[in-house]
Amino acid sequence: MTIRALVWNENVHETTQEEIREIYPDGIHGTIAAGLRDLLGDDVEVRTATLADPEHGLTEEALRATDVLLWWGHIAHDRVSDDAVRRVQEQVLAGMGLIVLHSGHFSKIFTRLLGTTCSLAWRNDGERELVWTTAPGHPIAEGVESPIVIDRQEMYGEHFDIPNPDDQVFISSFAGGEVFRSGVTFTRGRGHIFYFSPGDQEYPVYFHPQVRRVLANAVRWAAPAGERRLPEVSNPQRRDWR
Amino acid sequence: MTIRALVWNENVHETTQEEIREIYPDGIHGTIAAGLRDLLGDDVEVRTATLADPEHGLTEEALRATDVLLWWGHIAHDRVSDDAVRRVQEQVLAGMGLIVLHSGHFSKIFTRLLGTTCSLAWRNDGERELVWTTAPGHPIAEGVESPIVIDRQEMYGEHFDIPNPDDQVFISSFAGGEVFRSGVTFTRGRGHIFYFSPGDQEYPVYFHPQVRRVLANAVRWAAPAGERRLPEVSNPQRRDWR
Amino acid sequence: MTIRALVWNENVHETTQEEIREIYPDGIHGTIAAGLRDLLGDDVEVRTATLADPEHGLTEEALRATDVLLWWGHIAHDRVSDDAVRRVQEQVLAGMGLIVLHSGHFSKIFTRLLGTTCSLAWRNDGERELVWTTAPGHPIAEGVESPIVIDRQEMYGEHFDIPNPDDQVFISSFAGGEVFRSGVTFTRGRGHIFYFSPGDQEYPVYFHPQVRRVLANAVRWAAPAGERRLPEVSNPQRRDWR
Amino acid sequence: MTIRALVWNENVHETTQEEIREIYPDGIHGTIAAGLRDLLGDDVEVRTATLADPEHGLTEEALRATDVLLWWGHIAHDRVSDDAVRRVQEQVLAGMGLIVLHSGHFSKIFTRLLGTTCSLAWRNDGERELVWTTAPGHPIAEGVESPIVIDRQEMYGEHFDIPNPDDQVFISSFAGGEVFRSGVTFTRGRGHIFYFSPGDQEYPVYFHPQVRRVLANAVRWAAPAGERRLPEVSNPQRRDWR
Repeated sequence: MTIRALVWNENVHETTQEEIREIYPDGIHGTIAAGLRDLLGDDVEVRTATLADPEHGLTEEALRATDVLLWWGHIAHDRVSDDAVRRVQEQVLAGMGLIVLHSGHFSKIFTRLLGTTCSLAWRNDGERELVWTTAPGHPIAEGVESPIVIDRQEMYGEHFDIPNPDDQVFISSFAGGEVFRSGVTFTRGRGHIFYFSPGDQEYPVYFHPQVRRVLANAVRWAAPAGERRLPEVSNPQRRDWR
Repeated sequence: MTIRALVWNENVHETTQEEIREIYPDGIHGTIAAGLRDLLGDDVEVRTATLADPEHGLTEEALRATDVLLWWGHIAHDRVSDDAVRRVQEQVLAGMGLIVLHSGHFSKIFTRLLGTTCSLAWRNDGERELVWTTAPGHPIAEGVESPIVIDRQEMYGEHFDIPNPDDQVFISSFAGGEVFRSGVTFTRGRGHIFYFSPGDQEYPVYFHPQVRRVLANAVRWAAPAGERRLPEVSNPQRRDWR
Repeated sequence: MTIRALVWNENVHETTQEEIREIYPDGIHGTIAAGLRDLLGDDVEVRTATLADPEHGLTEEALRATDVLLWWGHIAHDRVSDDAVRRVQEQVLAGMGLIVLHSGHFSKIFTRLLGTTCSLAWRNDGERELVWTTAPGHPIAEGVESPIVIDRQEMYGEHFDIPNPDDQVFISSFAGGEVFRSGVTFTRGRGHIFYFSPGDQEYPVYFHPQVRRVLANAVRWAAPAGERRLPEVSNPQRRDWR
Repeated sequence: MTIRALVWNENVHETTQEEIREIYPDGIHGTIAAGLRDLLGDDVEVRTATLADPEHGLTEEALRATDVLLWWGHIAHDRVSDDAVRRVQEQVLAGMGLIVLHSGHFSKIFTRLLGTTCSLAWRNDGERELVWTTAPGHPIAEGVESPIVIDRQEMYGEHFDIPNPDDQVFISSFAGGEVFRSGVTFTRGRGHIFYFSPGDQEYPVYFHPQVRRVLANAVRWAAPAGERRLPEVSNPQRRDWR
């Protein structure tokens, strides 16, 4: 069955800063989408949407037609409408997969689903990041080298204020000595959520073959298994079970 | 060190329905507070607050002076101000313990901290509830009989739409055959959270000696271990670690 | 890719007790195997093995050719050789899926992988069991009714002495009021483990369409995602990461 | 209530290698015991035992008189008798706390309780270790600096083959770029288990004030909350719950 992936990107850096456009001429969303198409082929159908689209491209209809939503945002979190966030949250709880990327840790949708500040330590010095696999049997780690070596990256460090994840898939270290839980999974409602920190607008991380492998694996993993339905209250009569 | 507990109750049923006032003449908050005082003695200092208090009794100052907040609400969730909820969430993330009771599963503070609908199945038929211990070594289960037998209770049943809890302490069954994860713990930020479902305005559950034992244990367990501080972003310089 | 499933059964009750043979004329293993073939068709290749087979049918070669092993045992746990158990444990840690059924909770392989007593409460009164889904988005719960109604079953009740599971998929209640964590997952090494309690030699539970659905889902879920390899010690040189 | 701690050490390096005895003239056990006494004072009563003691100092009687057992071993894991390991496992499952240190990851008791290989990557180059707190509200992290800076240490790196821990308290990085889940908790039966990797016979890590703080906190945390009792099978009659 074809997985319908939607790559969402605020697409602000790329349209307002020449030096970022040079790194990501197709936008971060375009680069990620191309990676998914390359690796998953006919198993995936990839669309993209951005903040500037009507309703950010996140209408009820668009979301219902999405199995897995990938989310990249950074400087425009506040410009995402609360209505759009509510719609995304509902679809995640109903079963849509969600992959939150890098600075998306501070997006409205991620903090709303997790309930914590999602704060962290950061430093933009172009440091070497090593991404170590801590769950080699996890589907998201399939075929991924350990460590992934990323020559230059923004540092994200602990303490990362998130709830206990379901699975701890990757942990990164940086040249400066910091560590970060860079790949973690959560379940909310029927939805599977994966957060993956490598990736920044100033570094060409989304072209890295191993990073592309992780995202492709994650799309497969996050696709809903069964019926898509929002958990709801019920008031059943007492039944005779025979 | 004395634990400062604050028992919060919307206190609407008790002040508007004669039949409920008869069950809880001191209010649900008063009953719970008395139980904590009986069981914890000098180890605890218990205050109460209700929806009708100025700022619901949940001012910044009051919350900072609280180690563990107990929360009971049902028909007035929407009347709790968003500002108060924000203040409570911040204090929980900073380390204040939170014990959410029964119909508090639908409170703003609980759904905001958990990120899910917190929906469930329910039926008010005065059914027998059995509360089984599934984590006998957990501090909250210390000295608690398994099962706790509650003669008449509202039924709460699965599916209970919550994230994977940290610890699964109690599971209930009801005469009608339903089951419910009735005692579960979560960590959010530095805060320890315990949800416990037994307890309803129509049944004298908060007088039950075993239920009182659970709440007293939970107050001890949820009290913060260390410094009270909201997780926050930092932007450290790269350091020479020698 | 075809999943290679191996259904292992001690096959003692069926070969020594006429009344059990009448319930499971093809053995419990035969009944389970038929269910997997019916539901998974060409996606699965099912073999069976029993205690009486040379090396219990659990040679190194047989296990390496197995993606998911299903395990049923009850009165002959002690007759399973320690060598066979060691081989199974190694293959699980290397990535082979393992589904442990009913009284298999006391098998050598399960207690060795979990490290606890795996003890529980039990009563064989032919009680009605209701199996409630607590993780509706989990692949093992796909298409499964909640509750599954099993008219007559042996009761298994808490406290079930297991480590905290990764995912809590099903919880059962029994006519007598007991509850049981009847469907739980664990990860050990690279291996995915699912324990499912419904099923007993005295009741035709493995013919139940919903129970067959759960086992078919579990076989898909437990199949290894990537490379099959036992975690091992390494002593790497310090590397220059550029 | 006074916590009765027992620090167990194989005590082989210190008695056979002059250069190790110079680092730990009182043995690793003596150094750890002194740290606990300094930090916990009258709240703790500390004894020590070693491999050379009759029954390794791990008789039934000694273990029953122990609330928390600390375990250090390295080159003599195989010389610990299976009977002693069985007794320790039983007491842990019954509620005794267990703190496993550094190379104790390969001890019989740890691998038996966890069910995995507990393998890891290692390199003894005297590298700088940074121990970052990932759960700042956890009792074991109370008052602990993040990071703890350890100037010279053996490197332990991922993949560390352990089950998903209950709580992820510390993660370390090393000068060579590796990361390690250096502080993790587990529950087995009624027992609380903490594994902490910093500490090696060749480096004076157990004199480090922050490491001593962690161990003191862990002793408090691991002490049993309630009754000491091995989980066991029961066969209850069906009860009338009224």
